[in-house]
Amino acid sequence: MTPRRTVTLVGLGLIGGSIAASLKARRTRWVVTGTDRRQGSVDLARQRGFLDEGYAEAAEAVTGADLVILAAPVRAIRSLLCQLAPHLRPGQVVTDVGSAKVSVLVGARECLPEGVAFVGGHPVAGTERGGIEGAVPGLFEGRTCVLTPEPDTPPEALELVSALWRDLGSEVVCIAPDLHDRVFAYVSHLPHALAYSLVGAVSSDLEPHQASLGGTSLRDFTRVTASPAAVWKDVFLENRAALLGAVDAFSALLAELRSAVEAGDEEALDRFFLRAASEGRNPWHR
Amino acid sequence: MTPRRTVTLVGLGLIGGSIAASLKARRTRWVVTGTDRRQGSVDLARQRGFLDEGYAEAAEAVTGADLVILAAPVRAIRSLLCQLAPHLRPGQVVTDVGSAKVSVLVGARECLPEGVAFVGGHPVAGTERGGIEGAVPGLFEGRTCVLTPEPDTPPEALELVSALWRDLGSEVVCIAPDLHDRVFAYVSHLPHALAYSLVGAVSSDLEPHQASLGGTSLRDFTRVTASPAAVWKDVFLENRAALLGAVDAFSALLAELRSAVEAGDEEALDRFFLRAASEGRNPWHR
Repeated sequence: MTPRRTVTLVGLGLIGGSIAASLKARRTRWVVTGTDRRQGSVDLARQRGFLDEGYAEAAEAVTGADLVILAAPVRAIRSLLCQLAPHLRPGQVVTDVGSAKVSVLVGARECLPEGVAFVGGHPVAGTERGGIEGAVPGLFEGRTCVLTPEPDTPPEALELVSALWRDLGSEVVCIAPDLHDRVFAYVSHLPHALAYSLVGAVSSDLEPHQASLGGTSLRDFTRVTASPAAVWKDVFLENRAALLGAVDAFSALLAELRSAVEAGDEEALDRFFLRAASEGRNPWHR
Repeated sequence: MTPRRTVTLVGLGLIGGSIAASLKARRTRWVVTGTDRRQGSVDLARQRGFLDEGYAEAAEAVTGADLVILAAPVRAIRSLLCQLAPHLRPGQVVTDVGSAKVSVLVGARECLPEGVAFVGGHPVAGTERGGIEGAVPGLFEGRTCVLTPEPDTPPEALELVSALWRDLGSEVVCIAPDLHDRVFAYVSHLPHALAYSLVGAVSSDLEPHQASLGGTSLRDFTRVTASPAAVWKDVFLENRAALLGAVDAFSALLAELRSAVEAGDEEALDRFFLRAASEGRNPWHR
């Protein structure tokens, strides 16, 4: 039987809180500790039984942990790496939950001491409700967690982080960091950029009662803009290169559509729709 | 007690079929007849009890009708107007269900004989399933139907069409045709244009198994592209001017976001997000 391991959550917002809540609710063998900049979040997590131990200081929280999870917006993760580095010791493993990976890995390489392994992680889960108040056990069940090991990542560190996510009910998928950033630029960051731009255009050119005539398509499109703008500002800046590439690929297609509509060019429109793979040809519809 | 009126559906696809099905299911006082280019659709509508009478020819179907509903894609509506004009007589009322209104109204003015009133209509309802096979009673219950009367529309014609939609359980909203086209360019046609462009970009730059990593945001965004491309080609071309305006307004905002991200300009990003009215400030989220 494997010995009990201690995991600490640095950040008890929606994701950190839900990891703690899920580890307890699923009766895993992990000892769960945590900390947050807001003492109120630590108190609430303890009251709800999400933690075996809560700490006021991150430096204290990491001391006894086998696994440290940085559960914060992606730029805060980079600051935490440098800030906590002096308190980490060889043999500890650090992971994160940020939605951009290359910039976090660069930060880890720059800051972490020799012997402390870092494994980049990105659970593909979330709701529009942020904060510990929105934390729910079960948030990761049946979902995917993407890990981005590098050639020199120690296998036992990768295995420890993988075990945690499997204990949370997630499927673990490993891909290279730069591929992660390109994929999520297209499937998540670009859609958010489009949604925010669409909301901006609608808000400035229509009255609210006019916009509400639209039925479900506008709602489906703009639902994601209910999530906190600060999170997305971070993500856009941290995944800059990949996002710009995705925006440009998208804009080229939209410009092609615009020209075809302006010219009334039906053949060009047919070609456009053919490439846009409609009518069930997108496997991600299923 | 008002006398029974006869309504004929010219086109028994999703919308026409659902109008017929709903009028019968709700036990309204309308006599319901219909026709379709596909004899199979007429037969199926009769078998399912959606029609009191089915006709092979549109010219025949309109003869005995007080109200004619052109329930076809928007460009087909324009052809039908000219094609059916010789068979219409003064006192009859014609309406439609197209999602662009100015071009249909121009067609009606050009083709319809003196004394035949036209009232533009656009029920804001639908599903991705097209055809009579997808027709369901109740499709319009609790939904909005937008009508676009003009200054010279006879009040009794507007009232007849309004009564039909109220009988279907819809709320009737009247707005000017050009405002309709501008509003729906923003709330429906532009989102569809973005979704098709996004699918095109994702399909050409990612493998399907990569795209499927994206969780729900890509799915929410691209669900609308399951609807038939031919319908949207029509709508884009028929609402050309308003759509181009909406695309340009959107593209200007996306370009602003792109520049801010490229420059790492946090203040510009803050301004962008402020205008994009996030965090529940969009009344159409409710």
